[in-house]
Amino acid sequence: MAKSVKHILKQELEIKVGGKLWLESEGERFFGPGPMELLEKIEETGSISNAARAMNMSYKKAWELINHLNTQTNFPVVVPQAGGEKGGGSTLTAEAIELIEYYKALRKRFKTFLENETERLKI
Amino acid sequence: MAKSVKHILKQELEIKVGGKLWLESEGERFFGPGPMELLEKIEETGSISNAARAMNMSYKKAWELINHLNTQTNFPVVVPQAGGEKGGGSTLTAEAIELIEYYKALRKRFKTFLENETERLKI
Repeated sequence: MAKSVKHILKQELEIKVGGKLWLESEGERFFGPGPMELLEKIEETGSISNAARAMNMSYKKAWELINHLNTQTNFPVVVPQAGGEKGGGSTLTAEAIELIEYYKALRKRFKTFLENETERLKI
Repeated sequence: MAKSVKHILKQELEIKVGGKLWLESEGERFFGPGPMELLEKIEETGSISNAARAMNMSYKKAWELINHLNTQTNFPVVVPQAGGEKGGGSTLTAEAIELIEYYKALRKRFKTFLENETERLKI
């Protein structure tokens, strides 16, 4: 039978079950909220440097996240923008967009899990 | 329909969905793997100072975690050991033990969630 903690936790407080998810390989995380935001910002801003700036992240750090992600995927997640020259911006590959879609769906399932667990605190 | 990332992630790598859970109140975390380990070590070693030492945590930090936890509960989680004198050790309250049991059950449900999500990476 499930353990209740209703009588233990102060019910007048807004207590929630919170959490974080990531993808890992050999114990090392390579995708989670940070890389997800970076990919979304690249899509939005059209370049890695703009995306990094928008996140207050160094260009070097942004490239490290992308390179690390690329070691886990069959396709690069970012390519130079079509028609672009050196320094002319980057665009996400179709696979990176699918990865974003997957992560959004995963996040939604996790949100449901957390909401159910938060409800359970009250019963 | 659920998005598949099977073709995107390298299938020869052992890729897993990993995660972390905690309890929060007004956006501030007050219980998770750290406080859980601290309570377990207090139960094991019979004192807060021994527990902190076993975790390479300062006595001050251990007390901060406990005090923070106590602000969210209807009962203190730790009391001086019965018959103990000043500095004579601490013991968990029945409610703290229930909190441990609850967290173990929560962790188990989360493990199932993560295993299901890891399976889903392959389909």
